Amino acid sequence: MSGVFITLEGGDGSGKSTQAGLLEAWLVEAGQTVVRTREPGGTDLGTEVREIVLHSRGHIAPRAEALLYAADRAHHIATKVRPALERGEVVVQDRYLDSSVAYQGAGRVLDAAEIRSLSLWAAEGLLPDLTILLDLDEIAARARLDGANKRFDRLEAEKSEFHARVRSAFLGLAADEPERFLVLDAALPPEELAARIRARVAPLLA
Amino acid sequence: MSGVFITLEGGDGSGKSTQAGLLEAWLVEAGQTVVRTREPGGTDLGTEVREIVLHSRGHIAPRAEALLYAADRAHHIATKVRPALERGEVVVQDRYLDSSVAYQGAGRVLDAAEIRSLSLWAAEGLLPDLTILLDLDEIAARARLDGANKRFDRLEAEKSEFHARVRSAFLGLAADEPERFLVLDAALPPEELAARIRARVAPLLA
Repeated sequence: MSGVFITLEGGDGSGKSTQAGLLEAWLVEAGQTVVRTREPGGTDLGTEVREIVLHSRGHIAPRAEALLYAADRAHHIATKVRPALERGEVVVQDRYLDSSVAYQGAGRVLDAAEIRSLSLWAAEGLLPDLTILLDLDEIAARARLDGANKRFDRLEAEKSEFHARVRSAFLGLAADEPERFLVLDAALPPEELAARIRARVAPLLA
Repeated sequence: MSGVFITLEGGDGSGKSTQAGLLEAWLVEAGQTVVRTREPGGTDLGTEVREIVLHSRGHIAPRAEALLYAADRAHHIATKVRPALERGEVVVQDRYLDSSVAYQGAGRVLDAAEIRSLSLWAAEGLLPDLTILLDLDEIAARARLDGANKRFDRLEAEKSEFHARVRSAFLGLAADEPERFLVLDAALPPEELAARIRARVAPLLA
């Protein structure tokens, strides 16, 4: 495959969409054909699966939920991402298997290693050429919670603790594969982040 | 778990529903609480998943389809089958993991051993106490095709060959686990089949 597969990871509100947009614009300017996509829900089938997960009445068994997300991933990779890479295009994707592993690990319901295996089976082993982790530290995350103008009640405390676990899981994944990951401080100005991302992406282009 | 988990397997038209009904009636008569169910589609979530698989426009990636069926299985086992077994009830189920493995093996798209692992992960390792395989031989299967009053064209020939591969896969699974399987000739009269099934089920009841 001659294309380049780039994923963006990080907690909600870490600026993934903004950076994906800036990266896409720069790549197009540079003459690349770009497929910008996301998981979950990057295909029609994925949208239907996502509807089930989000709007199904009642409890969904944890393994069923993991398998539904894996189904979305399998279809998305097989029908959209892999064909684009085979055509030599650049795929810029919001969230991929690292999100599944980090959120699963943070939720502590299922084993994170099993979730990784499941994802890799779904995607026939496809790993990104580059994964950009937009890391939001505790202080910035807390500031964004405060910005929502809510009292720091028990729910907020739980959210804060969950965020810390997700963050820690992402950082652990990045440490395991330093060559695949570019870890950036999401609190930096967007243009500064975009410049660092461009510097890392440039050598990957043919 | 104090309940009994019985599955029925075999090709379409092998009489699984008839035998499930006769077995259920006999068990209820004997004072057992019975949950009669099926895969795919034994839960609301499963029905939605099945709708996606059957009615989604366009091609579904093979691994996505396998994962959707596994999601149905995970939810069905976790929310319906396992709780019934924990209450000490008898579960009589039309199709389970052996169908996934046999049909997948016959279709030769994905590796049958991987499908088995995926199913077992979905079901947290739950295997039936007894699996009744209603085996329909070539002559009977051909007679049923002829009964449909169609010319034996290329499509019918393909169907016949596919049936033979599914049958062979089921028989292989039964040979691998002779203690779990009861293999019966589906061409026998329904009452004769029911009597043989009762004889095998009786010792499993508390």
